[in-house]
Amino acid sequence: MTDEQIVRPTPISGFTEWLPEVRLLELAWLDRIREAFERYGFCSIETPSVEALDALMAKGETSQEVYTLRRLQGGEDDSDARLGLHFDLTVPFARYVAQHFNDLVFPFKRYQIQRVWRGERPQEGRYREFTQCDIDVINVDQVPLHFDAEMPRIVHEILTDLNIGPFSINFNNRKVLQGFYEGLGIADPISVIQAADKLDKIGEDGVAEILTGRLGLSEEQTRGCLDLAAIRGTDSSVIEQVKDLGSKSDLLAEGLAELAFVLDSLADLPEGSIRADLSIARGLDYYTGTVYEGKLLDYPTYGSICSGGRYENLAGSFIRRSLPGIGISIGLTRIFAKLLAEGKLPVNGRKCPSDVLVVVPSDERAALAGTTAATLRSRGLKVEVYHQADKLGKQIRYASRKGIPFVWFPPFEDGKPHEVKDMTSGEQTPADPGNWTCPAVS
Amino acid sequence: MTDEQIVRPTPISGFTEWLPEVRLLELAWLDRIREAFERYGFCSIETPSVEALDALMAKGETSQEVYTLRRLQGGEDDSDARLGLHFDLTVPFARYVAQHFNDLVFPFKRYQIQRVWRGERPQEGRYREFTQCDIDVINVDQVPLHFDAEMPRIVHEILTDLNIGPFSINFNNRKVLQGFYEGLGIADPISVIQAADKLDKIGEDGVAEILTGRLGLSEEQTRGCLDLAAIRGTDSSVIEQVKDLGSKSDLLAEGLAELAFVLDSLADLPEGSIRADLSIARGLDYYTGTVYEGKLLDYPTYGSICSGGRYENLAGSFIRRSLPGIGISIGLTRIFAKLLAEGKLPVNGRKCPSDVLVVVPSDERAALAGTTAATLRSRGLKVEVYHQADKLGKQIRYASRKGIPFVWFPPFEDGKPHEVKDMTSGEQTPADPGNWTCPAVS
Repeated sequence: MTDEQIVRPTPISGFTEWLPEVRLLELAWLDRIREAFERYGFCSIETPSVEALDALMAKGETSQEVYTLRRLQGGEDDSDARLGLHFDLTVPFARYVAQHFNDLVFPFKRYQIQRVWRGERPQEGRYREFTQCDIDVINVDQVPLHFDAEMPRIVHEILTDLNIGPFSINFNNRKVLQGFYEGLGIADPISVIQAADKLDKIGEDGVAEILTGRLGLSEEQTRGCLDLAAIRGTDSSVIEQVKDLGSKSDLLAEGLAELAFVLDSLADLPEGSIRADLSIARGLDYYTGTVYEGKLLDYPTYGSICSGGRYENLAGSFIRRSLPGIGISIGLTRIFAKLLAEGKLPVNGRKCPSDVLVVVPSDERAALAGTTAATLRSRGLKVEVYHQADKLGKQIRYASRKGIPFVWFPPFEDGKPHEVKDMTSGEQTPADPGNWTCPAVS
Repeated sequence: MTDEQIVRPTPISGFTEWLPEVRLLELAWLDRIREAFERYGFCSIETPSVEALDALMAKGETSQEVYTLRRLQGGEDDSDARLGLHFDLTVPFARYVAQHFNDLVFPFKRYQIQRVWRGERPQEGRYREFTQCDIDVINVDQVPLHFDAEMPRIVHEILTDLNIGPFSINFNNRKVLQGFYEGLGIADPISVIQAADKLDKIGEDGVAEILTGRLGLSEEQTRGCLDLAAIRGTDSSVIEQVKDLGSKSDLLAEGLAELAFVLDSLADLPEGSIRADLSIARGLDYYTGTVYEGKLLDYPTYGSICSGGRYENLAGSFIRRSLPGIGISIGLTRIFAKLLAEGKLPVNGRKCPSDVLVVVPSDERAALAGTTAATLRSRGLKVEVYHQADKLGKQIRYASRKGIPFVWFPPFEDGKPHEVKDMTSGEQTPADPGNWTCPAVS
């Protein structure tokens, strides 16, 4: 048979799958994200992949994005059909807090790294299944404002550590938007927020059309809304620019104070990496204060790489409590897949975690290869034994093809020493499995 | 509002969800399983949660167990309906190998730790969503027999390390079963294997009824089958017992040689923890040689805690290649949930990963708390800052309730030293955030 005759199974659009050498990098990212979350004391939780549809639909997300389950032979009245795969980790988290309220210590700070699913048409940066890495805090009655600054600070630290290239975490405050619109005498500020969120997609003219047309705003109100959305910056001049537009309301003042606090708290971060952007609205209905949205600066039209915000009424809506929260989510798959596609990830020849391949000198000495490997493993090394006594060249080639940095040779006859070969330098030296240490490999 | 008035969202049957203190233990298990897999050089892969139904149905699993996807507003002819959530990790792995054949180095050794789904009626030990931890090897044309022994050896090491209590990994060989039945002159050995697999559920009489009744076996053939299924043991006497039953065939001889090899190779493991059990058949059709099935000895009627086997034709069935494989799967959720329910897990007061809680002395000194925490974090510690300047007792109580072992006090006035309190001993001593090391905590 030749390769040409092989009919391979085809990938399913909207679902990612990586080769081992790429997965190795993704796993390293996941480890570093988790380490950072834990460094700040967030605890891990996981929720089921499904939620009751009622819970999923409690707040705002359009229902067409949800996948429901059906047993292959279940028929129409299947109770499983009332279960949907979660489309984010915030709604399941809010449900979790409500459900386990009496067993949690507040403020409850958790991280959650899981896959989520959306029944969307796949396109660049949009997947049907992808991994999100979320941190959130929910507390009873109030969540201190310092979290509004801490959330993007932690994500900034992580994205910098992951070396994803230039990025910016942009933020806004829903109270500023709503308060500003109210100050202009607009009766339905929520509809204006939803329209303003489309600015990226349909442009200023498109939004203006909705505002004056469908929503019946005056020319002056529309002008105000668009002027507000044009404001962005990294210092307190942003606040002044908003004030200069002349709208006034208590809510606006409150929102501006919060916006100023976040700007101020993050002033030490590198220029341009954190930015107030008054055009950000976020589509999800549950946000009520600070909102976040991250961008890869080299790919300005590419989707948001992290997002989140403050939600006052999400967890509390499941039970009769005031349970405000705030959180931020790193779009792991979205960032990783983009950098991979752009050739920006350091994919090298390493296709497995092994530090060492132990050669099998002969059938008679296979057991010796096994005990040698066991000794090395007991000292923390990652060690493969070649799977059979084979030509030496073939065994070494296997290590080379998998990118295993060291090949170990148990003695081929009694009285001879063990030897180890550095696959990068080609150097081969005597070594003792009981005390050899693996040099750091780049 | 009182707690009595709260109506909590209810758990969904068949899906697990853990409190933070339990998740902390599950995560430790997952880490140790992964570390062990990597110590043996297995590389990580993940596959999408869904497969094309054709691929899922390629081999033997009953179709009613599969969940298919549907978009909430997708309608009947939705293409997503041809996608099913995977019910194990072996079939997706085989498909992966076939699909990426040209990009992999063989023998391809991977581990895969993912959730799987089955549309089953939930009962003790059976979940609709659960996590499996698999290792498998697939090679072109042949997989050396030494893997038949290495697979259960690795799992034995892991389960011992996890301290799950007494367990046994039992194994058999499909060739022995099929060869034995053929030697008795039975025309359809596969049907007999399927009947024999029900021994646990319907007992000897039930199986005998199927064999003599539906399958038309003679009394003598039936007696032979049942005698075979009664054999178990930890040494070569097992082989003799099978031979004494008088059936003969080439396939039986081959199977017995393989069985003897595995028994022999694992003879050094603790008495009773590895056992040949000639009653094991495994329901899945794709197994062709060695098969595994693990049991918690304290709960003999509880389901299998690990399982797997050798499959000659699974990956190869997707493309025209000979791609035999062998693997074993740890039923993480099944083991973990059982030990949790039995009170056998060391759930202690620790509800988060934090080593240290830094107290906020006052609003003025909140920044000092922040820089103190940053210093400790930069030295590898996991550190929470209390979320606001609050009564000291309240801050300490928060640490106590979350099980954080150390509380850090930045100086409450200039010129005073930092201090740290050991929450277990109650001792409080001066300390420097730049060089304090966290004592190991049990």
